[in-house]
Amino acid sequence: MVTNRATLPQVAERAGVSLASASRALHGSGASVAMVERVKAAAAELGYQRDATGRSLRLGRTFQIGFAVADIGNPVYVEMMSAIQAVVAERGYRLVVATTGGTPESSVDLVRSLSGGLVDGLVISPLRLSPELVTEMREAAVPVVAIGRSLEADGIDSVSTDSAGGIGQAVAHTLAIGRRRIGFLNGPLETTPGEARQRGFDHAVAQDGFGAHTVDTQVAADFTVAAGLAAAHELLARHTAAPLDAVVAANDLLAIGAIKAASELGLRVPEDLAVTGMDDTEIGQVYQPSLTSVSLHSSERGRRAAELMLRLLDDPQSSPTTVFVEPELRVRESTRTEEQA
Amino acid sequence: MVTNRATLPQVAERAGVSLASASRALHGSGASVAMVERVKAAAAELGYQRDATGRSLRLGRTFQIGFAVADIGNPVYVEMMSAIQAVVAERGYRLVVATTGGTPESSVDLVRSLSGGLVDGLVISPLRLSPELVTEMREAAVPVVAIGRSLEADGIDSVSTDSAGGIGQAVAHTLAIGRRRIGFLNGPLETTPGEARQRGFDHAVAQDGFGAHTVDTQVAADFTVAAGLAAAHELLARHTAAPLDAVVAANDLLAIGAIKAASELGLRVPEDLAVTGMDDTEIGQVYQPSLTSVSLHSSERGRRAAELMLRLLDDPQSSPTTVFVEPELRVRESTRTEEQA
Repeated sequence: MVTNRATLPQVAERAGVSLASASRALHGSGASVAMVERVKAAAAELGYQRDATGRSLRLGRTFQIGFAVADIGNPVYVEMMSAIQAVVAERGYRLVVATTGGTPESSVDLVRSLSGGLVDGLVISPLRLSPELVTEMREAAVPVVAIGRSLEADGIDSVSTDSAGGIGQAVAHTLAIGRRRIGFLNGPLETTPGEARQRGFDHAVAQDGFGAHTVDTQVAADFTVAAGLAAAHELLARHTAAPLDAVVAANDLLAIGAIKAASELGLRVPEDLAVTGMDDTEIGQVYQPSLTSVSLHSSERGRRAAELMLRLLDDPQSSPTTVFVEPELRVRESTRTEEQA
Repeated sequence: MVTNRATLPQVAERAGVSLASASRALHGSGASVAMVERVKAAAAELGYQRDATGRSLRLGRTFQIGFAVADIGNPVYVEMMSAIQAVVAERGYRLVVATTGGTPESSVDLVRSLSGGLVDGLVISPLRLSPELVTEMREAAVPVVAIGRSLEADGIDSVSTDSAGGIGQAVAHTLAIGRRRIGFLNGPLETTPGEARQRGFDHAVAQDGFGAHTVDTQVAADFTVAAGLAAAHELLARHTAAPLDAVVAANDLLAIGAIKAASELGLRVPEDLAVTGMDDTEIGQVYQPSLTSVSLHSSERGRRAAELMLRLLDDPQSSPTTVFVEPELRVRESTRTEEQA
């Protein structure tokens, strides 16, 4: 007969505390007297036997998962973070977030220092990849999951999406609503998303069957509203004789910069200028006009990355895999013209 | 004669690496061969003698500062974070961010686990305070700096602002542009900002010399756009006979929710409904209409908190102090009516 022995997570739940707190309380380090009493009472009620589960708790666990991102100000990362946190919290882990600073060198440094005893696992969404960074991620002392390009072939679990194809969807939609003079507002080309989105744009305009049109690309200094505003002014100013009638932006923040620039120039969106973004952020949804955007499912990518992380924590020897998440266009006011209505 | 001996920060700068990396490279733990060679070359060039500075590096340093916030999705915290990071990075520290989850209990847990060897210092902006949390902050194993209410009397360094007075500025401005039927859109009243801002609103409407007017408060479920949108609909729906002509919101996200609600009801902002926010966020600045908002100087508060932290790291025995930052109203399109122009 198998005895249903109470587990530490059950004790934590009964005590109404996190798994980490319950562990600390029962193992005598860093818990208040009140916490120890509360957890011990719950353990006694459930007939929990410390040794049974205690043995399975590897010493030196931090109960922290790290999330390393280039720019915490980008709402995409905030959405991913919330999703990762929700998943790992169920298993008693806390999420801590650190910024990589955008360069591969600073990312290598971050992976090395976090994995040296500060976290039990690391989810990283690198803006720029280098061979050194890939090596560091593969050889880190703790499990690493990447969000971005697939690194399965490099032995790293990844969650990936097709942002190039997503830009293709935005271009196809822009052409379908009758726009022919299209500007592409991209972020830095040497970044992973900048490179992929440029490739997506170039491919889409080469493929389209709508005949002659103007296409022009402007690269903003960063994937931010401020950089998008400045770059959109430059882009629009290059086409005074035959003004652009659409801007496809590489993310929502750049798109908001483009709408703001249009507004400053007295252009109506979408009547004079249709604008699309990418990432389907909350701020794009509540902006006026609300923003047509390609969702790359940030929350789902975060959730799937967290699930890969938990799998790795359970079985560090599991084979590396890539989870793909498909892009999806969401049409809103910034491209919804009267002809369509 | 005093010899100008090279310091570890100078070596790090010459090598083009962080202070933490330079330290690790010279002390032989967790650095790549390439990094060790690069740092050693810089040390040789500058004639740096390891022992001179090595002794001053306390063992067990993590070179990490923690920043604990309730809601990483709030752009205020993102601004603070960037400012804190910029200051501590100059001294070779990395910032890691963790969310408290909003309750005092979860904050106590966070302070305890981070200060137990995961960070060298902790900056915390608690949404809700309890005596237990204050005790935990005061007795933490590492220096703690609070952003929010002044906790100087409790022996904790703090950076504080007068958000109640800031709401007073917003009310005075709203009255000065001729509005008399004012709704206050607040977040949860049991939070530190919710309580202070309600106090500020109640005080301001009690003080004004403009005579009879309607005032009404609606409490949103959270300090978010989505909660603000829902609560603004409830607030506006309560005043159909004599519609409100202004909404003072407790932060920018709630204010954007109010503008979106007005838009859904066919109301023009500011003509039919003037709207003010608080925090002066970038998204409020680029919103359409751009948002009148009370700046609480998030970046400056972050910078000052980081400076207090560095002071504490240099001298853990320094006397607790409070730095005050004054609120400042920024008038933009959401309250700029033609009568004023």
